[in-house]
Amino acid sequence: MPPRTTGSGTSYRDAGVDIDAKMMAIEGMKERARATLGSQAGPIGHFGGTWLVPSGPDQVLVASADGVGTKLKLAFALGGAAHAGMGRDIVNHCANDILALGAKPLFFLDYIATGRLDPAVVTAVVDGVADACLANGMALLGGETAEMPDMYAPGEYDLAGFVVGTVPPSEKVDGAAIHPGDVAIGFPSTGLHTNGYSLARTIVGLTGDAAHDIAILETTLADGTTLADALMAEHRSYLTQVQPLLAMGIVRGMAHITGGGLRDNLPRTLPAGAIARLDPESWVTPPVFDYLVEQGGVSLDERYRVFNMGIGFVVIVREADRDTVLDLYPEARQIGEIVDRVTTDESAVQGLSC
Amino acid sequence: MPPRTTGSGTSYRDAGVDIDAKMMAIEGMKERARATLGSQAGPIGHFGGTWLVPSGPDQVLVASADGVGTKLKLAFALGGAAHAGMGRDIVNHCANDILALGAKPLFFLDYIATGRLDPAVVTAVVDGVADACLANGMALLGGETAEMPDMYAPGEYDLAGFVVGTVPPSEKVDGAAIHPGDVAIGFPSTGLHTNGYSLARTIVGLTGDAAHDIAILETTLADGTTLADALMAEHRSYLTQVQPLLAMGIVRGMAHITGGGLRDNLPRTLPAGAIARLDPESWVTPPVFDYLVEQGGVSLDERYRVFNMGIGFVVIVREADRDTVLDLYPEARQIGEIVDRVTTDESAVQGLSC
Repeated sequence: MPPRTTGSGTSYRDAGVDIDAKMMAIEGMKERARATLGSQAGPIGHFGGTWLVPSGPDQVLVASADGVGTKLKLAFALGGAAHAGMGRDIVNHCANDILALGAKPLFFLDYIATGRLDPAVVTAVVDGVADACLANGMALLGGETAEMPDMYAPGEYDLAGFVVGTVPPSEKVDGAAIHPGDVAIGFPSTGLHTNGYSLARTIVGLTGDAAHDIAILETTLADGTTLADALMAEHRSYLTQVQPLLAMGIVRGMAHITGGGLRDNLPRTLPAGAIARLDPESWVTPPVFDYLVEQGGVSLDERYRVFNMGIGFVVIVREADRDTVLDLYPEARQIGEIVDRVTTDESAVQGLSC
Repeated sequence: MPPRTTGSGTSYRDAGVDIDAKMMAIEGMKERARATLGSQAGPIGHFGGTWLVPSGPDQVLVASADGVGTKLKLAFALGGAAHAGMGRDIVNHCANDILALGAKPLFFLDYIATGRLDPAVVTAVVDGVADACLANGMALLGGETAEMPDMYAPGEYDLAGFVVGTVPPSEKVDGAAIHPGDVAIGFPSTGLHTNGYSLARTIVGLTGDAAHDIAILETTLADGTTLADALMAEHRSYLTQVQPLLAMGIVRGMAHITGGGLRDNLPRTLPAGAIARLDPESWVTPPVFDYLVEQGGVSLDERYRVFNMGIGFVVIVREADRDTVLDLYPEARQIGEIVDRVTTDESAVQGLSC
């Protein structure tokens, strides 16, 4: 192909889309993606990424799409390492979503949309995506980097992810086996993960003006960390913790605590006849949640519906299996029990029956 | 779960995120998605959508992520049916991408991001997504609707899609079989599809002000259609046309002509030693391209790199199979031939060797 020449008329670059800069950044991204490919993934760069499924018994593919939400706004203000953090966040978020059904992640694709492509920023995001794909044992099979002038403010971008995993049909966990008497075990979150940021930004008074926002984010919390560190903490993956439990066959249900908090996410794995009665005193809520709740006067009902309040992932097991989990993971806590919906007076359960 | 109560403090709704409105819209979307599910898809609404892969021979999954770009800006100005059109566009775009490797689509997930969720608009988009999923024979397995205050202008949203399809390894088409002497057959596009809109908007002078933009879009083109109709024409799916050719086993390579035009997309299916020599006189360029090229003074090089110029999908077959394709599809045209890269003087080929 001859080098690109631009005539005297209107060019795509004049219109705000620089295909050459995009192509260079894409080459770098392909390089990072290649490092994540195992033997089942095909070459990068065709019209689709390929993944070989060898002949074998039935399997269930589990797919999910998600975004990182307005945590991005903090990354825009802070810059630097925060962009790679966004990349890791979206991958871990997606991996946890399909993990909640018992699936092992196979491959991931990203969608990055921006007004004018900043190669350094996009490369940092994809670095984070690729790092987290490697850490979760999945291939970065492709993605789309869209330059959309007039859609995004300068320096801003949106980031979404798409994951596909696999689980044998007999090992799929959908909560159907859950019975009253089972216990809910919570794994600690590292912070807000990727949910509740619009409320958090309103409470702490972020305006989108970088200098103003950075000053606010220097606020020190009760444990000595800054608001910036607490709010930017990585959305962790629970794959390493949960896979051994799945291998033991003791997990009856799981919930990834994302948008909607414990209140909306725990019921997604519960059978119609069951509810979870949680004891909020059973785990230590990280200082960042106390700070947000206090500064914002966030109601008891609202806080467990918007924030994860310190619990990022829940597994439900028989009471007899509780200590197996707690002995293996000292950081985990029994946070509640499963009770019969019909015989329980929900109104008597202070804001935390799910 | 007790009905949601909001205390006197800061609520998520105050912060611009209305979870209840979102939940209602999501219920409607789930209903539409359910209508697309075949026997292999699991129930909607868990942490991930599920897809049963029955035991069988090796297969290759093909996955792709894409967006609709700033065609969205026109949908924002025009409103109404344009939103469902965006939904159909992204599904067809994704289906064509994996079709270019010979894959049959299995399932789709969408990502819709907006500042404040307008249930009517989001529902219209998902209606379009679900319609096109049905038309392409795939399941709408899930998606994410993200409310991101301060990220999107009022009335605006971004839309991305993810598709997974399947092809037997021996039927995967990656262009490796292409040889000099083969012919390139082009299928007509319906217009710009979903690429080149930032340049098109600049050329026709759209500003984002709805009244101003609608007036401009009423401009009549040489064939009597309005600019609005021409620019909003649906990104068509080539599945129905191409699948019979794949079944015959005569297709050696394919290209979906998206961002980058014929110049950047055709080479994605060509072996290193081959280039395509195209004859731009061999097909009729739709009036909307003539209009944009003339009004914008778009150079010869640029126009084939930004716009599809009337060719939306290319199949490469042996010369002996050409008439089979052309007899079957009178709207298709031989647009060029494959030649040896080494023995061809590229500079002598007026802007259209790819």
